[in-house]
Amino acid sequence: MEEKTHTSIHYEKELQEIKETLLYEGGLVEQAIQRAVRSLLERDSDLARTVIADDEQINALDEKIESACIRLLALRQPAAKDLRFIAATIKVNGHLERIGDIAANIAKRAVDLNKVPPVKPYVDLPRMADITREMVRESLDALVNEDCELACEVREKDEVVDNLNEQIFRELLTFMMEDPKTIHRALMITQISKNLERISDHAESIAKMVIYMVTGKNVRHLGPGEGL
Amino acid sequence: MEEKTHTSIHYEKELQEIKETLLYEGGLVEQAIQRAVRSLLERDSDLARTVIADDEQINALDEKIESACIRLLALRQPAAKDLRFIAATIKVNGHLERIGDIAANIAKRAVDLNKVPPVKPYVDLPRMADITREMVRESLDALVNEDCELACEVREKDEVVDNLNEQIFRELLTFMMEDPKTIHRALMITQISKNLERISDHAESIAKMVIYMVTGKNVRHLGPGEGL
Repeated sequence: MEEKTHTSIHYEKELQEIKETLLYEGGLVEQAIQRAVRSLLERDSDLARTVIADDEQINALDEKIESACIRLLALRQPAAKDLRFIAATIKVNGHLERIGDIAANIAKRAVDLNKVPPVKPYVDLPRMADITREMVRESLDALVNEDCELACEVREKDEVVDNLNEQIFRELLTFMMEDPKTIHRALMITQISKNLERISDHAESIAKMVIYMVTGKNVRHLGPGEGL
Repeated sequence: MEEKTHTSIHYEKELQEIKETLLYEGGLVEQAIQRAVRSLLERDSDLARTVIADDEQINALDEKIESACIRLLALRQPAAKDLRFIAATIKVNGHLERIGDIAANIAKRAVDLNKVPPVKPYVDLPRMADITREMVRESLDALVNEDCELACEVREKDEVVDNLNEQIFRELLTFMMEDPKTIHRALMITQISKNLERISDHAESIAKMVIYMVTGKNVRHLGPGEGL
């Protein structure tokens, strides 16, 4: 067995730490999505404000991970495969930070919506939120475990979310046309739905990156079902 | 004067090429924004379809730049300052690719809107498009020239775009309430306006990255006017 040098032990420890911090950031992001939507369903504006305030933590992790990646590049000169992982991590980290922002935006909308009577009971929105959260978790698991199959599943789910968003839009359009008094409220709900769809897009981007990293096949600019 | 080695000449040439390709990608992205909005204003769906098809070129550049960055990291082991620039480029490149997608989305909406009678003459939308295009160009100029002052100007413009988006939303809301027949069309216009606002957010993210890269001060998670 090859004996590991002092440097390589340090190097692997640092790489492992980056992976763990990224997964931790992912956990916070998932929680933010879940809480943001719950604050709407349960009309709990205090919870919404917690989500908005906690976005700071995600931002701090974003900076921490990026600095760690650059430090690793500078001091350890990683080889080709790890280099590709670190470049992917720099981008994934950016996606997670954006998802955090989007979750905070959903929470802001929830605060507004909680001040007015509900248009209708929410059915598809919580389902959409559950799927997008799963997608975020699975795309990160796929990244750290180099699991291409899981990444492909994430891509398929993006289509489900797109359809749900379309369905919510159509339904609210009907409400708005029938009763113009609902327009403003209904618009805010379509914005939340659109925000969840954007989160799903970010998770899909992460999944495509994983497929590229592992197989070398570039599916980043193909639609779901294409390319693999 | 220090004589340059063969390696360092190669290295600088590669770095220069990355900068030039990034600016070229930026030019295509600017053109996509401009054409997408023009296809709406002039009801020219052929032009809109050109924008959608040409997104391929932006995607190809995205891949080319990322590969070049990784190759440079692997073979040339750049020093701290260049490392920071390359990490920034990997992210900026991702932003440009996303802006290209958003421009294609605007073009898709334009195709739909060109099939139905206009709700009202477009006044603020072309202004918004002009400002976002400027922001994209200036944020990239700020990056390659390490121009912090220009980056700060970009940040200020983001607020102008946010206000225009808000104004367009309010105005269309009035239209929808007064005449529910306009709802579907008006919603598509708010989506285009929202898309332009997202482009402006991407440009602002690039500008914040430049400020961080040059001054070491992290303004990435601060609002405009804060931090500097």
